[in-house]
Amino acid sequence: MEKTIFEKIIDREIPASIVYEDDNFLSFLDIQPVNKGHLLIVTKKPYRWMQDVPDDILSEAFVLTKKIMSHMIKVLGCDFVQVGVVGKDVPHFHIHLIPRMLSGDDVNTLSAGNKYKEGEMQTFAEKLKIN
Amino acid sequence: MEKTIFEKIIDREIPASIVYEDDNFLSFLDIQPVNKGHLLIVTKKPYRWMQDVPDDILSEAFVLTKKIMSHMIKVLGCDFVQVGVVGKDVPHFHIHLIPRMLSGDDVNTLSAGNKYKEGEMQTFAEKLKIN
Repeated sequence: MEKTIFEKIIDREIPASIVYEDDNFLSFLDIQPVNKGHLLIVTKKPYRWMQDVPDDILSEAFVLTKKIMSHMIKVLGCDFVQVGVVGKDVPHFHIHLIPRMLSGDDVNTLSAGNKYKEGEMQTFAEKLKIN
Repeated sequence: MEKTIFEKIIDREIPASIVYEDDNFLSFLDIQPVNKGHLLIVTKKPYRWMQDVPDDILSEAFVLTKKIMSHMIKVLGCDFVQVGVVGKDVPHFHIHLIPRMLSGDDVNTLSAGNKYKEGEMQTFAEKLKIN
């Protein structure tokens, strides 16, 4: 089976704006952000759906989501972070972390609504890097 | 501080179509479903945001989400379950579980898009009950 785009990113075959990596997970900027700073957390193993992820890895994934979420609020100054798991587009388990404001951004869609300007993605990635 | 609608449901002060309960969580039908069968999982303790939930409770919440998700796919015949955490409307941590089809339902919004007919909610709740 051909590698998904996420496996190619994990294997460094295609570039991505990576902000976090450990043995089980990689986090990088979504190139089609709902809001700028929109991150994805992917498992290094290519589980198809959330229900295919073992309980211990799943627990770790959402504790990591919580950690990165707090970091996003701190460095981006957003009010909260919206979390989503869909899985329809890329068949490899991933979590969306979308920076949100309590008023004014009016994001009620999961569709991409924003584009990075030249160089802006790099700035966001630098800001969002976390150990 | 006044109780949220979720605390009132937990305390059985207002009715809900409950499908699951344990010491830490309650799950019931969202009365404004994106798709019919749309469930919420709430913590019994009223944490404001996901980042306020202790790691062990958070892990438990998403392992429970996985369990209920598999059950939804089985009993509803949906293709997958979309998971969301927003928290803007009710200030009490909760997880959305939305039954989805791979084609045809075209849900790309988090807004409510469906209404239950008379008696239909009860039918869904009976189907979705899980121990």
